[in-house]
Amino acid sequence: MSLTPAPTAATTLTLPAAADLHVHLRQGDLMRMVVPHIRRGGVVRVLVMPNLKPAIASTEQALAYKRELEQIDASVDYWMTLYLGPEITPDEIRKAAAAGIKGVKSYPRGVTTNSESGIESYTAYYPVFKAMEETNMVLNLHGEVPSNPKDDICVMNAEVHFLKHLEQLHRDFPKLRIVLEHVTTGAAVRKVLELGDTVAATVTVHHLSLIVDDWAGKNHNYCKPVAKYPSDRRALWDAILSGSPKFFLGSDSAPHPRSTKECASGCAGVYTQPHVLPYLASVFEQYNALDKLQAFTSDNGNRFYQAKPSTDTVTLVREPLTVESELSYGDASAAQPAVVPFQAGETLPWRLA
Amino acid sequence: MSLTPAPTAATTLTLPAAADLHVHLRQGDLMRMVVPHIRRGGVVRVLVMPNLKPAIASTEQALAYKRELEQIDASVDYWMTLYLGPEITPDEIRKAAAAGIKGVKSYPRGVTTNSESGIESYTAYYPVFKAMEETNMVLNLHGEVPSNPKDDICVMNAEVHFLKHLEQLHRDFPKLRIVLEHVTTGAAVRKVLELGDTVAATVTVHHLSLIVDDWAGKNHNYCKPVAKYPSDRRALWDAILSGSPKFFLGSDSAPHPRSTKECASGCAGVYTQPHVLPYLASVFEQYNALDKLQAFTSDNGNRFYQAKPSTDTVTLVREPLTVESELSYGDASAAQPAVVPFQAGETLPWRLA
Repeated sequence: MSLTPAPTAATTLTLPAAADLHVHLRQGDLMRMVVPHIRRGGVVRVLVMPNLKPAIASTEQALAYKRELEQIDASVDYWMTLYLGPEITPDEIRKAAAAGIKGVKSYPRGVTTNSESGIESYTAYYPVFKAMEETNMVLNLHGEVPSNPKDDICVMNAEVHFLKHLEQLHRDFPKLRIVLEHVTTGAAVRKVLELGDTVAATVTVHHLSLIVDDWAGKNHNYCKPVAKYPSDRRALWDAILSGSPKFFLGSDSAPHPRSTKECASGCAGVYTQPHVLPYLASVFEQYNALDKLQAFTSDNGNRFYQAKPSTDTVTLVREPLTVESELSYGDASAAQPAVVPFQAGETLPWRLA
Repeated sequence: MSLTPAPTAATTLTLPAAADLHVHLRQGDLMRMVVPHIRRGGVVRVLVMPNLKPAIASTEQALAYKRELEQIDASVDYWMTLYLGPEITPDEIRKAAAAGIKGVKSYPRGVTTNSESGIESYTAYYPVFKAMEETNMVLNLHGEVPSNPKDDICVMNAEVHFLKHLEQLHRDFPKLRIVLEHVTTGAAVRKVLELGDTVAATVTVHHLSLIVDDWAGKNHNYCKPVAKYPSDRRALWDAILSGSPKFFLGSDSAPHPRSTKECASGCAGVYTQPHVLPYLASVFEQYNALDKLQAFTSDNGNRFYQAKPSTDTVTLVREPLTVESELSYGDASAAQPAVVPFQAGETLPWRLA
């Protein structure tokens, strides 16, 4: 990363186009809006989540979805994933690996959008994990257990209660590369640091900015896992500032129509795709961490996924960018739906050149 | 309370009309909807919060507001309060006490609806508290400190961080009756139990049902203080089940128009006024606590406020009550506003006869 300092501060930053290793690209009209936002946000490589309707449970489905995405923007590297469930067999894993599919995503049942078919126990999948280890695929974990009041488990500690499962999986499959997705707690950061090199974690854009107060009554900031205590946010920053290669960008950008956010029971998800790098540069600057941006957005993730960083570069400039109040999609009719992006209407100090 | 048992369970319950010792009755059209809901919910006596616009900061204002309320329903006992702020002097306290005003409400600055003029430090008000102690007025505390990420303070622990202030106030004014309003945490319950008899707490209807998961993305359940962990909810129930006289009903019923809840940045407040006793009977039954209902809704609160329970009685019957999906108010025009009550559209097993 070349940092061009002005008399008082950097004013441009050139770095490899980013790898965003956890995205939701959706289907239909919404997909056609979202996919062009990948490059617009400074990203060239994405790990595509499989929680469609129906969930992506076979190599054929994953490749068909990839073709759809490439028809919209062929310049992006789409790294595909399968949805862990009963359809996933060791044979399917070998087939998927041969076809270049990168990962298998595990959703505990019922904890987030389209996770109704998520898993309840990992032991049933040990033959699958064995095949994944052998074929060098990555296990992507949504690291929350379902809420359970009897055991005092709720959205605030669902990630902490998941860590024992992460630890067990790592112990039983030490060579299996595992990503604990969208970490939100100091406990998760410490556990990832404590485990071996085959365990890493993604961090979203929004969890670097938000705490629980920010989604209280404010559904556009509501996502799963929920943003937690200020000390948890600080732990995410400490992980990044430490220079540990175990933490990298996975935005979990997850668009939902405004009508399903501004309502009685809002969907979980924050939409950051269109401005991933401007958002990040703006908040990294607040933490005096611009020198860590390239490691977070390109080096660490590519290294963990055993890929070379993109040779494409992007340049951030320190000029104001006002985030759209909403982004419309689909037919330009009276009832045209729209997505409200993260920090809608706010002005970021950094934009892409 | 007379409990009339059926072969398998009680089917009617007759008890004194309730004392709801923390309500928001609002102003204008909204007030004209809310006030008739007091009796409808089985309540005859209410402690009226002073966070109007402008805040009620004088005896005259409080009495004028009381007259407005009496014009809508003269059958309710309106116990009035003043809003703690620079206008409140020891002289004003003596005047208020002589006029029958029951309490002074303290809001830390900025923590909830209309708290912009809330207080930042208690020591400036010690002469006021001294006058309150002498005139036997009650101090009603919104027990949260403002969020402060630097000190890891957020909506989840703002109440716990407030408890040192409660303890200090009680130590400095041991005869001053203090109510920690709408307690939501096990730590607050324990502190109230630990302090002397002049310290008590109100518990809302909704905090007996909700945990943090229930307001995540669901703004109609979002209130301040926010509902917290399952173990905190359990601590509220343990306090009630213990038979301690220190815990009593203060619903904090707080109506907001639907448009200010189902939006990008929702107001804090849950509206329970129209069905206070049916809500409570339904959830007390779940906890096998119907024999504790009268203590909670009448005996304990009246005793703490040194008042006789109402001689009016109400009868609950174990017959289904479907909560309205919304309650409209104001002009019956196309844009008529409405409030969505707690558990809208759900069916409660108990209703009032």
